[in-house]
Amino acid sequence: MNILRNKNIADVPGILSAGISCGIKTDKKKDLCIIYSQYPAVSAAVFTRNKVKGAPLIVNMENIKNSNTQAIVINSGNANSCTGNLGIDNAEKMIEITAGCLNLFPQEVLVASTGALSSQLPMEKIIPGIKKACSFLSNDDGSSAAEAILSTDTCTKTLAINFQLDGKKITMAGMAKGSTMIHPNMGTMLAFIVTDADISKELLQKALKKSVDASFNMISVDGDTSTNDMAIVLANGAAGTAAITIEDENYLSFGNALAVLCTELAKMIAKDGEGSTKFIEVAAANAKKPEDAIAAARSIASSNLIKCEIFGGVIKWSTIACVLGYSDIYMDPCDYDIFISNDKSKVQLVKSSKEADYNEAELKKIMSGDFVKICIDLKIGEYSATAWGCDLSCKYVRANAYLDLDY
Amino acid sequence: MNILRNKNIADVPGILSAGISCGIKTDKKKDLCIIYSQYPAVSAAVFTRNKVKGAPLIVNMENIKNSNTQAIVINSGNANSCTGNLGIDNAEKMIEITAGCLNLFPQEVLVASTGALSSQLPMEKIIPGIKKACSFLSNDDGSSAAEAILSTDTCTKTLAINFQLDGKKITMAGMAKGSTMIHPNMGTMLAFIVTDADISKELLQKALKKSVDASFNMISVDGDTSTNDMAIVLANGAAGTAAITIEDENYLSFGNALAVLCTELAKMIAKDGEGSTKFIEVAAANAKKPEDAIAAARSIASSNLIKCEIFGGVIKWSTIACVLGYSDIYMDPCDYDIFISNDKSKVQLVKSSKEADYNEAELKKIMSGDFVKICIDLKIGEYSATAWGCDLSCKYVRANAYLDLDY
Repeated sequence: MNILRNKNIADVPGILSAGISCGIKTDKKKDLCIIYSQYPAVSAAVFTRNKVKGAPLIVNMENIKNSNTQAIVINSGNANSCTGNLGIDNAEKMIEITAGCLNLFPQEVLVASTGALSSQLPMEKIIPGIKKACSFLSNDDGSSAAEAILSTDTCTKTLAINFQLDGKKITMAGMAKGSTMIHPNMGTMLAFIVTDADISKELLQKALKKSVDASFNMISVDGDTSTNDMAIVLANGAAGTAAITIEDENYLSFGNALAVLCTELAKMIAKDGEGSTKFIEVAAANAKKPEDAIAAARSIASSNLIKCEIFGGVIKWSTIACVLGYSDIYMDPCDYDIFISNDKSKVQLVKSSKEADYNEAELKKIMSGDFVKICIDLKIGEYSATAWGCDLSCKYVRANAYLDLDY
Repeated sequence: MNILRNKNIADVPGILSAGISCGIKTDKKKDLCIIYSQYPAVSAAVFTRNKVKGAPLIVNMENIKNSNTQAIVINSGNANSCTGNLGIDNAEKMIEITAGCLNLFPQEVLVASTGALSSQLPMEKIIPGIKKACSFLSNDDGSSAAEAILSTDTCTKTLAINFQLDGKKITMAGMAKGSTMIHPNMGTMLAFIVTDADISKELLQKALKKSVDASFNMISVDGDTSTNDMAIVLANGAAGTAAITIEDENYLSFGNALAVLCTELAKMIAKDGEGSTKFIEVAAANAKKPEDAIAAARSIASSNLIKCEIFGGVIKWSTIACVLGYSDIYMDPCDYDIFISNDKSKVQLVKSSKEADYNEAELKKIMSGDFVKICIDLKIGEYSATAWGCDLSCKYVRANAYLDLDY
């Protein structure tokens, strides 16, 4: 498997894309994106569990049932959420215009929106925008597409993977946009993945669900999803390999590639959390149950206190112990280990629930860097999980208090 | 029922207290407190659910079983948590010294500690401190006691209530200390309540549990308790009323007074959350199930985004709708109302899930004040709940990042 960090969705055979500015954002930034598969494609999607769902999701939850999905239209700058029936009409209108331009049936198109909530879409800008974007579709400008879906993100998030199925090269690529928070209460998380593999709709859905649980859901505590979160994958079969219809070796290879792609995109989102200055990885090992490992890793990655400490370049092992204690997992309060590391060095802070004899200078050096990894060994079972996050900074607070309007 | 805001535990007949400085805190602030009942008293307590428990809690969980509890010894400046077996030995030593000074059996004494985690108690200061405090016990300086239990709190938190049982005056008073957070991941919440009523240990425990659930637990999401949280109540019967042994009218009056006292103390803690500039009350009404009302109120009161918005003097109804949506409650996403108010005025932001036609200037005026109340009408059932919180400020982030060491 090759991970190609400078590639994007346009590098997948049969996929065209466009990203343009149609004036939804006031600063002329790109705000409208079309992804188009030249061949029929099967789709799978995971939508937010939030009970207040944005209009695009309500429409997609119907269209995703269609056997063919050939286009996705996405706007940024306005989430079309908390917009009532008019919002749904507008989401349907976006689909209809896109379908018209691309000679598709409306049910073959999906839609996504991200940005501010509760105001209606400026359809007078979006309708001509879609027409323009469709005329710009190409196979060599995936970076414009990736740019057009951003909201408060500071950078685009794209990745491609090459892997083999039956000796033939398969390409899978994705783009994502992040959240205003590392543990997104609200900031919409969108991910769009395309591949030239051939796979049944059922197995595509199964592989996506599994990949999302270990990636995007590990940067976002379950209940805390936005109204508009979604991950969509299209598989158009352009590589000419045999269709994956059973859970054989090819399915495992496909699922593995999808998991890696989702994890890398999720890490990019966490790294670019609003106001973030440091990237955090939390690995919980040797838990009694899988859900204990997940809860431990997530609780630590989303603790305000730990995030503040890391922002300040410090870490108290007792804070980590306390968060473990309230994460409602099966643990032995008298026997767990805690390690802090980065790519270069590792310090054991706690041994069997007691402060270990560690090198303070080494810890300080790790904590002053922009990547901090916390490892917890629960020493009680065999399950592991990893979560990702970022620190909590004053910049985050000010941005969400609408005090830095230029931010 | 009379609420006496300038009274404290020393106003309860038969209760003596002292608060002194013994040098645990480096700034000569009071850090050691004794509460002593001159008469035998029954006790009840609620302890943290955190699996990593501070040493004082481990010791108290035994001593609370005793039929008589006549003293509580409390230190601030060091939480005696994550301190292993030596920590437990030290907590027992505090009890032993206190019992010796007051002619009690060790099992008649409870202990509490709050402050920094993971360092051992300076027993060479605490032992003479306890002796000194016991010699200072009086019935007229409850404010020193209230001061000696504080950590990062900016003010003492005390209250007394007078109510009648069988025509006789009963006094109930309490003092509390707060959390470093409004939704305390870590900051220890301690509450000590004394009364001259006479009540069975069993009913005292039942009344305390019920009161704590609707008060201290509504400023602290369940799992997110510190290692040292506890609420203790002593009832010494000094008023000479008949003992409450069944759930009769007297029990209801007693329980009502205890609930009011706990709620007022909890609100004082929320108001004084670390770095707080605004106090937030969230009322969720007409939920389908009691737990839905609780979840809705708590989720809103503990949302980082809502807390940041309120810090900045703004509120987006879509943020509230989104938090409601992920709070995992039974709701109709197309029919709920949202109101924002303070003590003087009220604005309806949302009517049947749609933005209402409200006066923006009036909303702005409410949001610029230091008290903001959010009311949610779920319009689907008959259950209500109220939660309290405070805003999330840069001061909070800097304090917990150890960037403002003078804070």
